[in-house]
Amino acid sequence: MTTELPPYWLRDNCPCAECRDPRNGQKLFQITDLPDDLAIAAQAELEGHLEVLWSDGHRSRYPSGVPAREADGDGRTEADKRLWEAADFAGGLPEARWEAYLADPAEQAAVLAAVRRSGFAVLRGVPVRERQVLAVAETFGHVRVTNYGELFDVRVEPDPNNLAFTSAAITPHTDNPYRDPVPTLQLLHCLENSATGGDSGLVDGFRAAALLRAQAPEHFAVLTRTPVPFVFRDRGTELRADRPLIDVDPLGRIREVRFNNRSIATLRGPAAELEAFYAAYRAFAAITLRPELQLEFRLDPGDCLIFDNVRLMHARTAFAQDGRRHLQGCYADLDSLGSTLAVLHRRSAALDELAALFAGEGAGEYLGEAVTMAEHMLQAGALAEAAGAAPHLVAAALLHDVGHFFDQHGHGSLHGRDLMEGQDNRHSDTGAAWLARWFGPEVTGPIRLHVAAKRYLCAVEPDYRARLSEASEYTLQVQGGPMSGQDAAAFAAHPGAEDAVAVRRWDDQAKEAGAKTPDFDHFRPLLASLMR
Amino acid sequence: MTTELPPYWLRDNCPCAECRDPRNGQKLFQITDLPDDLAIAAQAELEGHLEVLWSDGHRSRYPSGVPAREADGDGRTEADKRLWEAADFAGGLPEARWEAYLADPAEQAAVLAAVRRSGFAVLRGVPVRERQVLAVAETFGHVRVTNYGELFDVRVEPDPNNLAFTSAAITPHTDNPYRDPVPTLQLLHCLENSATGGDSGLVDGFRAAALLRAQAPEHFAVLTRTPVPFVFRDRGTELRADRPLIDVDPLGRIREVRFNNRSIATLRGPAAELEAFYAAYRAFAAITLRPELQLEFRLDPGDCLIFDNVRLMHARTAFAQDGRRHLQGCYADLDSLGSTLAVLHRRSAALDELAALFAGEGAGEYLGEAVTMAEHMLQAGALAEAAGAAPHLVAAALLHDVGHFFDQHGHGSLHGRDLMEGQDNRHSDTGAAWLARWFGPEVTGPIRLHVAAKRYLCAVEPDYRARLSEASEYTLQVQGGPMSGQDAAAFAAHPGAEDAVAVRRWDDQAKEAGAKTPDFDHFRPLLASLMR
Repeated sequence: MTTELPPYWLRDNCPCAECRDPRNGQKLFQITDLPDDLAIAAQAELEGHLEVLWSDGHRSRYPSGVPAREADGDGRTEADKRLWEAADFAGGLPEARWEAYLADPAEQAAVLAAVRRSGFAVLRGVPVRERQVLAVAETFGHVRVTNYGELFDVRVEPDPNNLAFTSAAITPHTDNPYRDPVPTLQLLHCLENSATGGDSGLVDGFRAAALLRAQAPEHFAVLTRTPVPFVFRDRGTELRADRPLIDVDPLGRIREVRFNNRSIATLRGPAAELEAFYAAYRAFAAITLRPELQLEFRLDPGDCLIFDNVRLMHARTAFAQDGRRHLQGCYADLDSLGSTLAVLHRRSAALDELAALFAGEGAGEYLGEAVTMAEHMLQAGALAEAAGAAPHLVAAALLHDVGHFFDQHGHGSLHGRDLMEGQDNRHSDTGAAWLARWFGPEVTGPIRLHVAAKRYLCAVEPDYRARLSEASEYTLQVQGGPMSGQDAAAFAAHPGAEDAVAVRRWDDQAKEAGAKTPDFDHFRPLLASLMR
Repeated sequence: MTTELPPYWLRDNCPCAECRDPRNGQKLFQITDLPDDLAIAAQAELEGHLEVLWSDGHRSRYPSGVPAREADGDGRTEADKRLWEAADFAGGLPEARWEAYLADPAEQAAVLAAVRRSGFAVLRGVPVRERQVLAVAETFGHVRVTNYGELFDVRVEPDPNNLAFTSAAITPHTDNPYRDPVPTLQLLHCLENSATGGDSGLVDGFRAAALLRAQAPEHFAVLTRTPVPFVFRDRGTELRADRPLIDVDPLGRIREVRFNNRSIATLRGPAAELEAFYAAYRAFAAITLRPELQLEFRLDPGDCLIFDNVRLMHARTAFAQDGRRHLQGCYADLDSLGSTLAVLHRRSAALDELAALFAGEGAGEYLGEAVTMAEHMLQAGALAEAAGAAPHLVAAALLHDVGHFFDQHGHGSLHGRDLMEGQDNRHSDTGAAWLARWFGPEVTGPIRLHVAAKRYLCAVEPDYRARLSEASEYTLQVQGGPMSGQDAAAFAAHPGAEDAVAVRRWDDQAKEAGAKTPDFDHFRPLLASLMR
């Protein structure tokens, strides 16, 4: 059987360590390094692996057959969004309490996912203090500094350089269209809002654009193909970007919306094109004002609105000078938000994977002890926790034996049995390496050294070895026996020795049949916090 | 005569103060505020002005006839670039000394213009110290923070998460293609480079793309319409952006290039599309390696390379571990660089305009004194300078009478004659307002108050009035005569009173026929520094 896969595509995705850095997946060759006449010389499928011998002699092995394609889309076009009207939020806005958002990765993921999918979310109970908005942005990304500074104050100013800094009503618009790259996220943190009026409004610009496309495709086409000069000038600034009001990706999907009449400068072009543009622009603008698209709500002190500035249009009603209104805002970008969300999901999946170990193989395997592997590790974690140990030590105690479940390639296989059959499975190394995808050396270090710690303690504590369980005494031999005096001295001098010995002692104690412990879920928040 | 101009376009560009904020040019209405049946009811052209009466009753007056269109383009597409090959720089790179760049706005403008036009420039003699690269970026824009931090160190690292942090050769590429928005500028500041090898290379990606278009339009088309998944993953990061290798604007002009095989993930699509993409990609890659496109040079300590990361590809040769190589880099954006350059040009044009006043009307008009206006103002500036006054006071003294040259709308007319004909031209206000486009209140304040200062001094210094010139005594009457005691007390309490009185005294002394003074150009650097 020969595959129909394009050779350069297949070779560009060779997963071998020569072609791709195993740490970060970056390719280590250039596309021009491949010969002009590259071809598949031979190929075979073996147990789901695809093995390819190339015409230039290189060999590729694709473990899961044909390379997996990236999931469809980067999440930035209309295809990956939930387009909405105001009534879709009749049951409430996507929101979370600030404390829960900070404490619980699942809560944080839900907020960031809402910004990706619906274009916005509100955090409630954010501390009402100046510059706090910057701290909110740093929880998922990086602040984008502009000519307005690191942050900007939205309140009535005596000599405003922008309509935002007055008490006038502002119709739906996006910010900074005169920047390229435009800031893709905006945050607005309410510090004070006792004025009459001054409510906030959001419109889904993707929805409005999609409605325009359905209603008047010719208008939609004009807006996607007309670069509009957006300009902002003040004493120290002269920004200009020529971008279409509706930006589509190469496949025609809506990707970005810019909408701000305040800063549209004088278009050039033949009269007929100017006519067509203004007709389309006015039709689009009329859609953005449809009542069913206006999502209106009030920001109270402590609320922080996070929204997609290349999708949602934001607005505010006029307000009276009968009270004070003060928001602080800043800009950030969707790419870092998406990265933070993906890492949260990856970590959540990792915790699920660990939980499955405790529930699956771990719950059925004794490896010569009176308790299952899962009971043993939960007891170790519980002992560390009861001793008031630092979180990284609780985690290390809880996870110290996960290496028994994997071979050296990280592939699942109950590797611990090898050990019991007299072959050192080096499970401390295997476990530490497997966990290093998610945890830092403060967690993986004691795990890597927990077998060495046993051999160390046998050398330096006369009565330690006598207390070992039978299985542990057996594996001690396989693992090399007690350390020599020289090795023990070297171990003691290692900066991680103390943590490793602590974990080892909980390990040794954690073999009590029938002991009550918390379950794995109890440790999830602690593990999640260490994954940061 | 009726104009053929599209009504909505014309009305959207109404320059009246009701439609447009005179401070920043932002429009004060929404496009939807205009009625659906907007039409021109009547129009007339008068002395170059276009007057329009609209069907909704609004009146527009376009001072220079048809509204001027924005200059073509925002400077970001190939249309506004100088596409190059290496031989174009046989005479030297676009470069400047750091000190000259800081001291001379013209030098700074030349460097920034080179980055806009050619995609790069080199600053020489930048202080060799850590974090200095951030200070370089802040001279024209804002640092873009990424997962690599505020800045990154390019040197050999023990556990690199990126090929950049090894000693390997790196072929031409752009950075961070997995970000959207991608950082549009990169800076690399050389702190140490004593290793053999490690030279820098640049390739004009726009040139390469244009060559591909000429040679194989079908390949060019494929690369502009295929979103490529760029991915970067490490422990705390998971970035992805789907963008074409060659991004064109709606008019088909090359606008951005992304090129980095290291981070191209696995494309999806039918086999035929994958084949077509790889054929086009390899053809493009081959062009980027053509010897005539490789601009190679060496960065020495103190050199800082600034380059366009959505146009130029950068590379480096491998280097031996026989010496140390350490660069610090950071990212920034082209929009702020463009703004800084535009403001520098605007200020340079403003200085030319002021220079023309001193050379033109100012050199021919006496307004009742023994010296011309130009001589008078140059004497006042020189007296302030000789007295060791702060720069803002030298500038205020030099420019205190420019209001004589303008009417209240800032239009040129030798308005000073009105004053001599017994009508207060309020030249202190007019001049301060006109200058406020470029100078802050520390300069415009004393100018605004220099007539009030005369009226104040007449009230509080018994012998002051007697020393006034004949013309000044005459204008004192027109301007309201000496202040009352109450007004004088209020004036003295004004925080700007001291500066205004100082300028006033130089003004009074600056009427000596034939006195030698520096010319206007002498004051240009001082004025330029105050425009920041």
